Amino acid sequence: MKKPDIVILGAGYGGIMTALKLQKMLNVNEAAITLVNKYDYHYQTTWLHENAAGTLHHDRTRIPINDVINTDKVQFILDTVVSIKPDKKKVKLENGDLNYDILVIGLGFEAETFGIPGLKENAFTIGDIDSARLIREHLKYNFAMYHHENCKNLGRLNIVVGGGGFTGVEFLGELANRIPELCEEYDINKSMVRLINIERETTVLPGFDSQLAEYAMSSLESRGVEFITGADFKKCEPDRIVYEKDGKEVSIPTYTTIWTAGVRANSIVEESGFDHNQGKIDVCPDLRAPGYDDIFAIGDCALIMDRATNTPYPPTAQIAVQQSDTAARNITALVQGTGELTEFEPHMLGTVASLGNNDAIGDVFNNRKLFGWKAVIMKKIIENRYLFKLGGWGLLMRKGKFNIFY
Amino acid sequence: MKKPDIVILGAGYGGIMTALKLQKMLNVNEAAITLVNKYDYHYQTTWLHENAAGTLHHDRTRIPINDVINTDKVQFILDTVVSIKPDKKKVKLENGDLNYDILVIGLGFEAETFGIPGLKENAFTIGDIDSARLIREHLKYNFAMYHHENCKNLGRLNIVVGGGGFTGVEFLGELANRIPELCEEYDINKSMVRLINIERETTVLPGFDSQLAEYAMSSLESRGVEFITGADFKKCEPDRIVYEKDGKEVSIPTYTTIWTAGVRANSIVEESGFDHNQGKIDVCPDLRAPGYDDIFAIGDCALIMDRATNTPYPPTAQIAVQQSDTAARNITALVQGTGELTEFEPHMLGTVASLGNNDAIGDVFNNRKLFGWKAVIMKKIIENRYLFKLGGWGLLMRKGKFNIFY
Repeated sequence: MKKPDIVILGAGYGGIMTALKLQKMLNVNEAAITLVNKYDYHYQTTWLHENAAGTLHHDRTRIPINDVINTDKVQFILDTVVSIKPDKKKVKLENGDLNYDILVIGLGFEAETFGIPGLKENAFTIGDIDSARLIREHLKYNFAMYHHENCKNLGRLNIVVGGGGFTGVEFLGELANRIPELCEEYDINKSMVRLINIERETTVLPGFDSQLAEYAMSSLESRGVEFITGADFKKCEPDRIVYEKDGKEVSIPTYTTIWTAGVRANSIVEESGFDHNQGKIDVCPDLRAPGYDDIFAIGDCALIMDRATNTPYPPTAQIAVQQSDTAARNITALVQGTGELTEFEPHMLGTVASLGNNDAIGDVFNNRKLFGWKAVIMKKIIENRYLFKLGGWGLLMRKGKFNIFY
Repeated sequence: MKKPDIVILGAGYGGIMTALKLQKMLNVNEAAITLVNKYDYHYQTTWLHENAAGTLHHDRTRIPINDVINTDKVQFILDTVVSIKPDKKKVKLENGDLNYDILVIGLGFEAETFGIPGLKENAFTIGDIDSARLIREHLKYNFAMYHHENCKNLGRLNIVVGGGGFTGVEFLGELANRIPELCEEYDINKSMVRLINIERETTVLPGFDSQLAEYAMSSLESRGVEFITGADFKKCEPDRIVYEKDGKEVSIPTYTTIWTAGVRANSIVEESGFDHNQGKIDVCPDLRAPGYDDIFAIGDCALIMDRATNTPYPPTAQIAVQQSDTAARNITALVQGTGELTEFEPHMLGTVASLGNNDAIGDVFNNRKLFGWKAVIMKKIIENRYLFKLGGWGLLMRKGKFNIFY
């Protein structure tokens, strides 16, 4: 009897952890495990804003896949997924097709620009190593341009961050610390640089504890960030953006807009014909796609409702990693034909948002609020814990964050 | 009796050394010395190609003017010269006017693009700290763009250097060493990058010893530089250049063209109504401008003929520094009313061209040829000697080049 082909699409938080767990739970005679990813490295999406600001090198954020998987047990294919054909049990890649018996969809997110004119063409999004690295270079290029141009252009020095959610606020925190360094490198007077956040709601971090959100705003404001809340982002052109507030349209000259205000699931999910809710698969409790007993969806591609509040859980690394546990356990049960599948139950351990390398806020362990250095340490513990789970002590020592005392 | 106002325009090699010598030779009761420069730092023009390639930080190349002049003896004005009115003994600055009794014109060079279409708009030139720093960032930005664009564009990775003279060859040497680092940083396969030199003559370094020129070409070719000699540069567009060779026009896609093939004197010389020869003042033997007994011209603004060959001496730092000796001595004689002015006599000590940090060629001490590490050491001795003259041991220790063994 042929052993089943397990194919995992995507090596993000959910995908790579599912592969790691399956390689422990199944032996090579039981199943053939294949992991497909468009890069030969895994990266920590939650660190990309630091790479984009230039405060952390991108090589700290990425980890070669072959360094963490056991290539005797998991076959890695470097390729880009084009589409999924669930009726034919086939995945189309750019360079060939793959057949599966069990499929795990962990293809992550893409930016959602809500049809706002010019955003897709002219704004940056922090999506992967390539885009984060480009943002870092774009910032420096524009600062270098400032003194080179005879006609001084303040658009070179204005940086607009669209969206005051989690990513936007964390990115602003890094940028606020980075700007003084950039000013020194490019002979710019710091008072000329504007770091502007535009948020639709009346506060940043909507949904977060209001005391923590206020703390975040004043921490960032003290480092020069301007918050424009209650404002609609109207359009983004190559050299300016326009927002509307209190019925008035305001234009800001800028060559650098970073859009952090929306993510959606990878559009391959929708295009492959799955039932979806705003692009995500509204998975069964065992994480399988409705109607398919051989397809699991995890991470940003899966919709998980919080039954207590009837709202979806936010798409976090925390939940993706927890889902990989359930997915791996259920796949093992299917392969070994042992018993019922278990249901996914998220455990919200809390959330910590960094505000640069020296400040943070956290809402952890049933509404215990953390500010300042305690939150900074908690953030690094969470990040280091993930590295340990992914690659043990060796990886933790190579890529961990231990600079917690400044 | 009012003490004479000595005004020195430009703090390049010639200008700053004239100021330094005058502050030693004249006491404060004899003359008021003013130095005008558009930056508050002096920079070593001959190091800028390293800043542009990214192999040396620009802060190593520049020196705050107030660190080397004695501000009790020399007044420094940070301003940009707009024009010189020799008949009114006046200099117009962007922020005011200056009267002089004795003037030294050391305003340096600007790029000469010979009317080649698009060069002025689309090519970079290595002219000052700002432009060198921008080239460094431009290279990185385009390398970062390569992986970010879905449609791969080799123009991002093609670098065209127009002109195979001294600056072009030295810049290629630095770039050839820099490319492997850039490839690693931006995940680029080194074989995709093209480093192309376009030279009108049949060899690079025309006028230089042919054996040395051949050595330079093979050193650079072994590190991947392509030489296209005997080719006319026809035009430069934002995303490509066109050259003509053997009657055929060839287009190379590129976003990065650096033009090193021509310099001319600062156009203020010509615009201020001086008699000029291709923009330069054809100075008298005592370095004064013909027809003006109170105006000296030095460095790139002065034309010095080699009577033996009836060709002009090349505009080098070496000659500019030597001219500052003659200028300072003659100004002192004018101020003190002592005897005849001396004639400028250049002493060609030879020329050394670097080919990156680990190779060089030199033609020194009456046609003694140097290759490889001997030339590398000679180059650094010359550079360090200048720093010592400019700012003594302190400056030499801070900015000198001592990494001569790799």
